[in-house]
Amino acid sequence: MPPDGVKGDTAPLALEPWYDFHEVGWHLGECRMKLLTQAGIAVIAAAATLFGVPAWAGDPLPSWNDTASKKAIVNFVTAVTTKGRSEYVPPERRIATFDNDGTLWVEYPMYTQALFAFDRVKELAPQHPEWKTKQPFKALLEGDMETVGASGMKGLIEILMATHSGMTAAEFETTVLNWLATHKHPKFDRLYTESVYQPQLELLAYLRANGFKTFIVSGGGIAFMRSMTEKLYGIPPEQVVGSSIVTEFQIRDGKPVLVRMPKIDFINDKAGKPVGIYEHIGRRPILAFGNSDSDIQMIEYTMAGTGPRLGLFVHHTDADREYAYDRESHVGMLDKALDQADAKGWIIVDMKKDWKTVFPAK
Amino acid sequence: MPPDGVKGDTAPLALEPWYDFHEVGWHLGECRMKLLTQAGIAVIAAAATLFGVPAWAGDPLPSWNDTASKKAIVNFVTAVTTKGRSEYVPPERRIATFDNDGTLWVEYPMYTQALFAFDRVKELAPQHPEWKTKQPFKALLEGDMETVGASGMKGLIEILMATHSGMTAAEFETTVLNWLATHKHPKFDRLYTESVYQPQLELLAYLRANGFKTFIVSGGGIAFMRSMTEKLYGIPPEQVVGSSIVTEFQIRDGKPVLVRMPKIDFINDKAGKPVGIYEHIGRRPILAFGNSDSDIQMIEYTMAGTGPRLGLFVHHTDADREYAYDRESHVGMLDKALDQADAKGWIIVDMKKDWKTVFPAK
Repeated sequence: MPPDGVKGDTAPLALEPWYDFHEVGWHLGECRMKLLTQAGIAVIAAAATLFGVPAWAGDPLPSWNDTASKKAIVNFVTAVTTKGRSEYVPPERRIATFDNDGTLWVEYPMYTQALFAFDRVKELAPQHPEWKTKQPFKALLEGDMETVGASGMKGLIEILMATHSGMTAAEFETTVLNWLATHKHPKFDRLYTESVYQPQLELLAYLRANGFKTFIVSGGGIAFMRSMTEKLYGIPPEQVVGSSIVTEFQIRDGKPVLVRMPKIDFINDKAGKPVGIYEHIGRRPILAFGNSDSDIQMIEYTMAGTGPRLGLFVHHTDADREYAYDRESHVGMLDKALDQADAKGWIIVDMKKDWKTVFPAK
Repeated sequence: MPPDGVKGDTAPLALEPWYDFHEVGWHLGECRMKLLTQAGIAVIAAAATLFGVPAWAGDPLPSWNDTASKKAIVNFVTAVTTKGRSEYVPPERRIATFDNDGTLWVEYPMYTQALFAFDRVKELAPQHPEWKTKQPFKALLEGDMETVGASGMKGLIEILMATHSGMTAAEFETTVLNWLATHKHPKFDRLYTESVYQPQLELLAYLRANGFKTFIVSGGGIAFMRSMTEKLYGIPPEQVVGSSIVTEFQIRDGKPVLVRMPKIDFINDKAGKPVGIYEHIGRRPILAFGNSDSDIQMIEYTMAGTGPRLGLFVHHTDADREYAYDRESHVGMLDKALDQADAKGWIIVDMKKDWKTVFPAK
């Protein structure tokens, strides 16, 4: 969830009252099955490489149409993995970073993590009688999302702190997993964890089968994302970079625990993304994939390295199958990146034209 | 380099005037050769696993004597990697964390990173005429290490900030690599990068061949360590957790750069180690290896997880081949950990008795 300003400004955020449409669902099983199959492909590919067989006999990206975007990806991967070519990059430097919200899973009409926080406020309300009169909690409990939005980033951070701190790391993870297991996206009748982009799952698997290490670099909370990235994308917790709050080591009842404190540690967004990459990965990516102006710095940093580089943005152009939004959107605004893409050689992936399917089969 | 207090206290540090004995050397080639051989073993082991052949036909830890420490390690690795056993741990949870100074390479009589900083002060002195009268720089330039030590952690942090910030990330890495390529440990006539422990190189390779992911979790500077951990230990930058200073994304001459700022971001030491593990790895290790009281919290956190766990400390008992120091030492103090080891089931690895050899053959 990329906060658009972290200095406590009170510019209104356009929040709409759609988040009540959640429904309960239990379809995670199929989603996992799909991912296991992809892991299987990667193992077969790795084994095939050992015996000199091409890793991908068929089309590695079947959910991508044969457009310029797909050709650019395949040409890039071929170039950096072919020994003897001037573009060759050794495996340890094949670092690929992906934004999460709007790049790997749905972010519209509101970031999933914000919905989680709003729900938690409702669940925690009985323990916080003071919220009945305290904004932005009062408005949130009354379903007045316009007032919540008007409280700006300052209000949103108060909501995040109230719902993301004050518990141990293990307790927080359990809470997130329980929420994710039972909440669906209102438009797609899918769990949020099923509202991932099939073409991107294929791209992640294709990159890994070609020796890439895949990372998430997102404005979202690092602990929130880590609870599910391994199951959803095959990306382990140690390859997730995100925003964080301060954590403290404490001994409770003789047991060491990590306690989440109500203080922001790092905002991994915009100019924070290259910094997060430096802190967590320590190496410049050769491929970076985002979907909003918040990803510009990550992609600039990636492209500024020597040798072959690929920078891509998902452009949400598909009102039927997903959503269409860009320059005027209150989430995932894509504006400056569209203006600069041609001059800077960034690839704009047009969801409607470039993706054959959007979501995994159910 | 584990700072022993970060709140600017002025307790004296016992620094001695030994650090002038550096000599120039160019023996990195042999060291790399050794590591390539180990990487080769890992590949063969991985291939063997595919075909159901035991990964290690011979002794995986030839530089370890057949003592209780070695047996505990081999028994642990066998238990967690044998399917069907109650102790079995799936590969993605086989996280092993190692301290660096005194655990993987020599830290005595002074942390290598501090020596680097002291040398940098001398090299930078012409650009800082004010250091001629400003402590602790004045004392350092005059070789008066007693006064430098008396300036305490506050003084040491001033020296670190003056030498570790104010440049881009890329410039800093080049400076570190140049220094490491030309500076030898006074006692061993080896480059610092060659003053690594052969038994630990074998242990890292053995763990990786058994599906472990190996991490460094050290009080040392994360960028300082990352410049060399891949070559020295086969541990890539993204698997290094350390102390950090604030870094800023800037555009300079139209190029995006990361600039190191004179402000501490995080101290990855003592109670900071479990926090650093949470932030960078996001998963509790099942094996942790340290050598000083600064590693107690990391090992407590590791051991507190469910299922099989292994916590180990190197005890520096070998005055002939390396050094003998523990309870009274000004670096790498090992005192409380020795007292608690038996009761808590921590393994104290006795360098003199448990290690057949200390350093790689030259």
